[in-house]
Amino acid sequence: MAMHVATLTTRLIRPTYQNKCVVLRYMSTTCDHGKSLVYQEYGEPIKVLSMQQIPLKKPEDNQVLVKWLLAPVNPADINTIQGRYPSKPALPAVPGNEGVGEVVIVGSKVQGLEVGDRVVPNGVNMGTWRTHAVYNKDEVLKIPKNIGMVEASMINVNPCTAYRMLKDFVPLKPGDTVIQNGGNSAVGQIVIQLCKAWHLKSVSIVRDRPEIIELKDHLKSLGAHEVLTESELRKTEIFKSKQYLQPKLALNCICGQNALEVLRHLDHSGVMVTYGGMSRDPLTVPTSALIFKNITIKGFWMTAWTKAHMESKERTEMYNELEELINTKNLQAPPYKLIAFDKFQEAVLNALSINGKAGLKYILDMTQK
Amino acid sequence: MAMHVATLTTRLIRPTYQNKCVVLRYMSTTCDHGKSLVYQEYGEPIKVLSMQQIPLKKPEDNQVLVKWLLAPVNPADINTIQGRYPSKPALPAVPGNEGVGEVVIVGSKVQGLEVGDRVVPNGVNMGTWRTHAVYNKDEVLKIPKNIGMVEASMINVNPCTAYRMLKDFVPLKPGDTVIQNGGNSAVGQIVIQLCKAWHLKSVSIVRDRPEIIELKDHLKSLGAHEVLTESELRKTEIFKSKQYLQPKLALNCICGQNALEVLRHLDHSGVMVTYGGMSRDPLTVPTSALIFKNITIKGFWMTAWTKAHMESKERTEMYNELEELINTKNLQAPPYKLIAFDKFQEAVLNALSINGKAGLKYILDMTQK
Repeated sequence: MAMHVATLTTRLIRPTYQNKCVVLRYMSTTCDHGKSLVYQEYGEPIKVLSMQQIPLKKPEDNQVLVKWLLAPVNPADINTIQGRYPSKPALPAVPGNEGVGEVVIVGSKVQGLEVGDRVVPNGVNMGTWRTHAVYNKDEVLKIPKNIGMVEASMINVNPCTAYRMLKDFVPLKPGDTVIQNGGNSAVGQIVIQLCKAWHLKSVSIVRDRPEIIELKDHLKSLGAHEVLTESELRKTEIFKSKQYLQPKLALNCICGQNALEVLRHLDHSGVMVTYGGMSRDPLTVPTSALIFKNITIKGFWMTAWTKAHMESKERTEMYNELEELINTKNLQAPPYKLIAFDKFQEAVLNALSINGKAGLKYILDMTQK
Repeated sequence: MAMHVATLTTRLIRPTYQNKCVVLRYMSTTCDHGKSLVYQEYGEPIKVLSMQQIPLKKPEDNQVLVKWLLAPVNPADINTIQGRYPSKPALPAVPGNEGVGEVVIVGSKVQGLEVGDRVVPNGVNMGTWRTHAVYNKDEVLKIPKNIGMVEASMINVNPCTAYRMLKDFVPLKPGDTVIQNGGNSAVGQIVIQLCKAWHLKSVSIVRDRPEIIELKDHLKSLGAHEVLTESELRKTEIFKSKQYLQPKLALNCICGQNALEVLRHLDHSGVMVTYGGMSRDPLTVPTSALIFKNITIKGFWMTAWTKAHMESKERTEMYNELEELINTKNLQAPPYKLIAFDKFQEAVLNALSINGKAGLKYILDMTQK
């Protein structure tokens, strides 16, 4: 089971991490070279990505040198390298939007960051798939050392996406129902946990599959109130029972027929928020749902939100709350697999099949040799 | 041409109306019976509607007796009689949501209404397809006598729908572009005129048809900035020119492929408001439009708005502004045909083909013998 592999790996990495850090910190300040994945043209990652030696630059007065330790491989990273993502970095580019790193050199005028501080990218397209990089002080965000490394490496995209979608579209109160498809996706699992933490009832839709019982058990162990397969959704009567209010909010990363079935269960004046389209079909909306049920259809893109709210109070509050939830074990990483940085090919080959490969999230590990 | 027929009819009805009124006022307060269309069961209007003699009731202290003069036949009326509309009156029922009438008897405690005042329904499902009815004072809304009778009879649904859709979804400023399909529909023609009055640029999409030149001329005479056929829309470059800003608001009464083509031209963060689905296809929304263009998809139903805003300041302001626009000839009725009340069959048979029958709006005329 993927979940067991992940849990085991977590246990393995944590004790060894501290020792490695000492070595790495020493190396990063003494050796002249790091390594970086780079692409010169858009295309399939396996073809266009190459591992290059990079000279280490000394940070300027307002800069820091960061040693990246872990960097997840997200579907959006793959799409960006393919040139299929609206957010197109100038080429040549270093991929990677998320990660956790350590500050190893601090510029003379930098305040609020010290050597040894743990950081995550404070923005998008900052190229985390490398061992070292120099950033302006404001380009990294300090996070507490007491939260899990893996969780920290993934905090920027999926937890923030789930957090914002639950906060920003519909006023929800304890006891309200949230319905989502892709319940087993990285975001979906965080939605389940946030709903539990905030006393919302989550109903998650997943695809029919042979190991459905194990999957339901796993999602329920995260706090899912109800997990339904697509075929169960079609005939469910749970929203006619007193156990669940009709959902005011639906989160959709699939589109197509699946989203249409989800839409049917939305309460009057409910909102469906789309953040993905894994079926590759468009979203189909019955006219009557718009006119007579007053349903609203919106989209959400974390990248755009981050750019628009970089210095906002909401963003600070969000990170504080997410860090607290991680720290109190109310929010845990999805099943994942650490891949030694040099063996990045396995990660980029598998990262697009989110629900394939037992739902594993691949994470590049710059601390492994 | 439908437009010519309608214009001619308008000229004919207005001079004769005053004379008839005197007679009618006399009759309505002296004779014992009126006539009413009634249906006992849901079904095709031509089968389930019957004309019945009704005894005239004397209004109570807080009531008025209204003589209905004109009552439009809207597609929603037909759907209601068919039982296909979400708003289902208890049976037996008198159809008709819109109309203009005259107060002929006033209850002793009624203030603000006098004999001879002109009124429209102040709410929904008030049964305007009859010669007389007693209403509570608050169930009718007094309107000025100086506005056209035909326009007054149609003020409740289409002008209010167009008004609210332009006001309530996106903040628009002079020079902004609004795109709509069904540009020749009753609402579409009012959208064009309101856009002109409010210094917005309207781009209207209509179906390809043999008499397209006449239709374009007609819509441009109402103030349309641009009228495009569906095939012209597919290749238009007008939004790349400096003449038009990309539309922030799209109004949709068609859905299906047509709406999808309209959607493609929406500006980033634009809103599409759906108020009809004449293609009988659902609305199809590309995932990327939701996520990366931040498009919002909403619906609008005038009936629901009216119920929710019955006593509101917005509603009073809307009627005042619409009455002023009608009075200053900035808002005119769509092409229509008056049908003597006794010959109601022609109206109910044709009312669903909005764009068929040369786009005529059918109006029951209780003043014709």
